[in-house]
Amino acid sequence: MAKQNKQEFVTHITPRSEDFSQWYTDVILQTELCDYAPVRGCMIVRPYGYAIWERIQEEMDKRFKETGHQNVYFPMLIPESLLLKEAEHVEGFAPEVAWVTQGGTEKLQERLAVRPTSETIFCTMYAKWVQTWRDLPMKYNQWCSVMRWEKATRPFLRTSEFLWQEGHTIHATPEEAQEETLTMLGVYQEVAENILALPVYVGQKSEKEKFAGARATYSMEAMMQDGKALQAGTSHNFGTNFSEAYDIQFQNKEGKLTYVHETSWGVSTRLIGAIIMTHGDERGLRLPPKVAPIQCVILPIAAHKPGVTEACEKLEQELKAAGLRVKLDDRDTVSAGFKFNDWELKGVPVRLEVGPRDLENGVVTIFRRDLCEKVTLPLENIAESVAKLLDEIQQELFNQAKAFRDERTKVVTNIDELGEVVQSGFAKAMWCGEQACEDVIKERFNATSRNMPFDQEGEKCGETCVCCGKQAKKVMYFAKAY
Amino acid sequence: MAKQNKQEFVTHITPRSEDFSQWYTDVILQTELCDYAPVRGCMIVRPYGYAIWERIQEEMDKRFKETGHQNVYFPMLIPESLLLKEAEHVEGFAPEVAWVTQGGTEKLQERLAVRPTSETIFCTMYAKWVQTWRDLPMKYNQWCSVMRWEKATRPFLRTSEFLWQEGHTIHATPEEAQEETLTMLGVYQEVAENILALPVYVGQKSEKEKFAGARATYSMEAMMQDGKALQAGTSHNFGTNFSEAYDIQFQNKEGKLTYVHETSWGVSTRLIGAIIMTHGDERGLRLPPKVAPIQCVILPIAAHKPGVTEACEKLEQELKAAGLRVKLDDRDTVSAGFKFNDWELKGVPVRLEVGPRDLENGVVTIFRRDLCEKVTLPLENIAESVAKLLDEIQQELFNQAKAFRDERTKVVTNIDELGEVVQSGFAKAMWCGEQACEDVIKERFNATSRNMPFDQEGEKCGETCVCCGKQAKKVMYFAKAY
Repeated sequence: MAKQNKQEFVTHITPRSEDFSQWYTDVILQTELCDYAPVRGCMIVRPYGYAIWERIQEEMDKRFKETGHQNVYFPMLIPESLLLKEAEHVEGFAPEVAWVTQGGTEKLQERLAVRPTSETIFCTMYAKWVQTWRDLPMKYNQWCSVMRWEKATRPFLRTSEFLWQEGHTIHATPEEAQEETLTMLGVYQEVAENILALPVYVGQKSEKEKFAGARATYSMEAMMQDGKALQAGTSHNFGTNFSEAYDIQFQNKEGKLTYVHETSWGVSTRLIGAIIMTHGDERGLRLPPKVAPIQCVILPIAAHKPGVTEACEKLEQELKAAGLRVKLDDRDTVSAGFKFNDWELKGVPVRLEVGPRDLENGVVTIFRRDLCEKVTLPLENIAESVAKLLDEIQQELFNQAKAFRDERTKVVTNIDELGEVVQSGFAKAMWCGEQACEDVIKERFNATSRNMPFDQEGEKCGETCVCCGKQAKKVMYFAKAY
Repeated sequence: MAKQNKQEFVTHITPRSEDFSQWYTDVILQTELCDYAPVRGCMIVRPYGYAIWERIQEEMDKRFKETGHQNVYFPMLIPESLLLKEAEHVEGFAPEVAWVTQGGTEKLQERLAVRPTSETIFCTMYAKWVQTWRDLPMKYNQWCSVMRWEKATRPFLRTSEFLWQEGHTIHATPEEAQEETLTMLGVYQEVAENILALPVYVGQKSEKEKFAGARATYSMEAMMQDGKALQAGTSHNFGTNFSEAYDIQFQNKEGKLTYVHETSWGVSTRLIGAIIMTHGDERGLRLPPKVAPIQCVILPIAAHKPGVTEACEKLEQELKAAGLRVKLDDRDTVSAGFKFNDWELKGVPVRLEVGPRDLENGVVTIFRRDLCEKVTLPLENIAESVAKLLDEIQQELFNQAKAFRDERTKVVTNIDELGEVVQSGFAKAMWCGEQACEDVIKERFNATSRNMPFDQEGEKCGETCVCCGKQAKKVMYFAKAY
């Protein structure tokens, strides 16, 4: 499509209700968050998408540092022999590894994996670096990309290469490792809920669904608008699984050689997919203000009229000075109507319209993207008013998402109910703890166990397993998932 | 070596004068900037090294955005067919490419290159994205790692994988592309000189030394303490070389299809190597305050005496509140003498010693790492005094490096002088512009042309080529190089 056409008409987005999947694709491409790459299963993160990632990085990284972590960078290539040391882990990842077999003109003697995750190489170095209890804990993180040779891919949700962070820590005691695992899950939840406006269920994964090589995996699970679950972050406690395989030992205070306890945790650009599928609507994106690359856009109305351009520029300065992320859209090649649609599509939380009549009345007309409503605010103290409004919008988006999720999360007590509920939301059910029942539920409804809430006492869903009817052990969320 | 030994003795560093190369290796390993990876030619950037990189990123990224650039992320794998489109480029990079030939259990039909640089994939997407003059310029940058299968590697200077940024821009006119090329060279020089305290020569590379596929390459060249040159950043003008190969055309204002003019520019973790080899001394690193992860370390002297610990903590708060990067070293497992050596090794610009006598006198004893001198400062307004001192140290390190470089940069008028001067510095000479003479100089002295200063008139070095004696065309720096 020629650019000139695009500037005259706002392109059609498939309605969410008609085809959620096509709606998603339309939105990510038309907002220029990303594009398909000329490489199988990979995407290009374009400026608007990358700016969201930078905001996520900034918020996460600050909290990682506040909780005592340091950033590092480890090589992207991992020799096959290192990958093979922990049996469960290699079994989980080997089918997804991209292999480098040639360097320059030389055929390599040993294949090198493009990292699918970096436990194996962190372990190798930890074994070298740690000597005594004084060296512990070591709490490292890296921001990088990883590669998993996926068959079915979707931008931001599942791509062969994706951007993420991976924390890897080693500790002297099991208690410290468990505390770390839960602390980082808590950091993820806090950022998800307070910054991305994503309500999440946090809890422990089943044995079947846990990370390859972990003793315990915890996740946060968000509900998308089609009722499916998106695993939005994970935190793993490895116990001594890896330290035994990689021989990471330290001299404890009593002088005895002891294996370290290890954790890892990660979030990825998948979070951008979660934002889109949680908050988006028929007009396109709705970005939570704290993560929006542009928080407010200023549109001059009848810019040729005296004072309008100057007023818009003054407004821009004022909002910028207050620390807001502002864009003045002074394009004269497109109509105001086009601009309205364009910025609504891009999900900018607040649009400020400034025309001659507004100026006469000393006000600004404001469009709230969260409610698609117009309000009028006085020009006086406008930066303060807009900042306050952005906070309201942030909260409103969270509230809407939480109401949606809570309404679609239902306690179920038998398998038919479960089958019904997972068509459009999460089923909360009692479960016997056996994989056989997870397999039945997967087979019949294509739904999986998501996680077990920490508060297992709060809301019992009965005494017997939703699937087999035997004595139940756990409260578990089940859902279809991305 | 057991950790306990390490904590009792400060390890020996090879003297610079004895073996500069071994000194470098000792310093980078003992300061824990990095470690060798269990992957051929790769390194691990440890927390202290990565924190320097984060400072460099922050300073660079801020300036990229101020000059209108946006960050993006492109895939790390590039199909061989894309790489092959620009002949000079592929010839330059093919011998250094690591190839992915297998994905999961599947043998790939087409090999995928782990990016050695990303012109080819940026070009492919630019061809898709650009339609009319309204879309121009596009000014993108990405922070990532690249892979070049190098034979001889040294941490930070030349490794198979390294971290860098690569800017890629397209423009409507040759003038705009040239302006961009020089603007970014200017940004690099400004950061190098004002933040990293590295005086650099900026100028144009010869045809022989330019980037594969560029019409013109510009570089900044820093002098290391062994007199060798380190190319510390490059900026390339491609003209329409790539846009013709990748068919990147736009409709200009007159409605005519026209090829875009393209640039690219990059700096890497090599800059960390430059900092080490420019400022380091017999005691280890000396970090410029603006890039130092820790700007001041506080050491309690006789911490058991009343008031010392409290005073140190108060001092820490005060300095932190002033925005300084501070560490309070309250380890009680090592001696004060050990700590002195440890922080001098790590190159922390300012050490504050606080003991009972200092407190009595209302002062702090301060050690300046740049001059290895002690001064005494009143506790009153200490944060302001330390901030001022850090500025002085920043300037002093630059001045020292510049004096060193200027002293070892010599105008030469014949080939024997050139051969002599490049043993310990840069030779500034007239050159005929022919590659044959560069080849002779390389052959005889293992020195290469570095760059041609922009001010070719300022300081003529004669009328005839330093090598062949024919009519000279250009002033050129020659040096041995990393």
